[in-house]
Amino acid sequence: MPSTPEKYATLAPFLSVRNGAKAVEFYKAALGATELFRVDEGGVIARLAIGDSEFWLSDESPQHGNFSPQTLNGSTSRMVIVVDDPDAAFDRAIAAGGKVVFPMEDQSYRWRIGRFVDPFGHHWEIGKPLA
Amino acid sequence: MPSTPEKYATLAPFLSVRNGAKAVEFYKAALGATELFRVDEGGVIARLAIGDSEFWLSDESPQHGNFSPQTLNGSTSRMVIVVDDPDAAFDRAIAAGGKVVFPMEDQSYRWRIGRFVDPFGHHWEIGKPLA
Repeated sequence: MPSTPEKYATLAPFLSVRNGAKAVEFYKAALGATELFRVDEGGVIARLAIGDSEFWLSDESPQHGNFSPQTLNGSTSRMVIVVDDPDAAFDRAIAAGGKVVFPMEDQSYRWRIGRFVDPFGHHWEIGKPLA
Repeated sequence: MPSTPEKYATLAPFLSVRNGAKAVEFYKAALGATELFRVDEGGVIARLAIGDSEFWLSDESPQHGNFSPQTLNGSTSRMVIVVDDPDAAFDRAIAAGGKVVFPMEDQSYRWRIGRFVDPFGHHWEIGKPLA
């Protein structure tokens, strides 16, 4: 069931970033994300859809325990995207400004998968299980 | 569509932890998660289902850019769980060993929601939009 404004997934990740407004634009360009919800009140809070899934993002607020990867110099969760054509999706993300961490390759564990880091420090894997 | 071993969500978060084996047990007890996939090869890699959603976890490997919250002293994504009875789900998580960050309350933005941190340093919000 695709993510919609009315139907919430049981679980959705909520990414902390610096400059949430730019991050929304990046995720639209790089991942084809669409906005399900957005408020701009000093900082941005947005709920974005990608395929059948959704995620949230907002500007970091360390005082509430919400740290951006730029603040912590690393990330504690990466995001895994599974699509039919991971090569095309990966190329799109890199063209939009993602930096390759691991190139798209067939792995010994029977996935074709690559990994990039976005301009906000979050890591994304794009792949699919091999038949 | 519920998450199944055969059907991958477009997007799933992948949490890095110290002691993946204990983390799997915690998420089963605290969140009612079920195992869709698991390998133990020195470290644990697991794909877990919760409601219609899924997430991955593994032992951290900083050399690959996968940091646990304990290593970075904070987390860069939190996980948002939406269920019909957030109070019961929150109580279960706390009883299993989660620590309250923000108690379950009705918020001005029209959600009933609370937040806890798990023994591995990941933050979880459990809530639902108010009618």
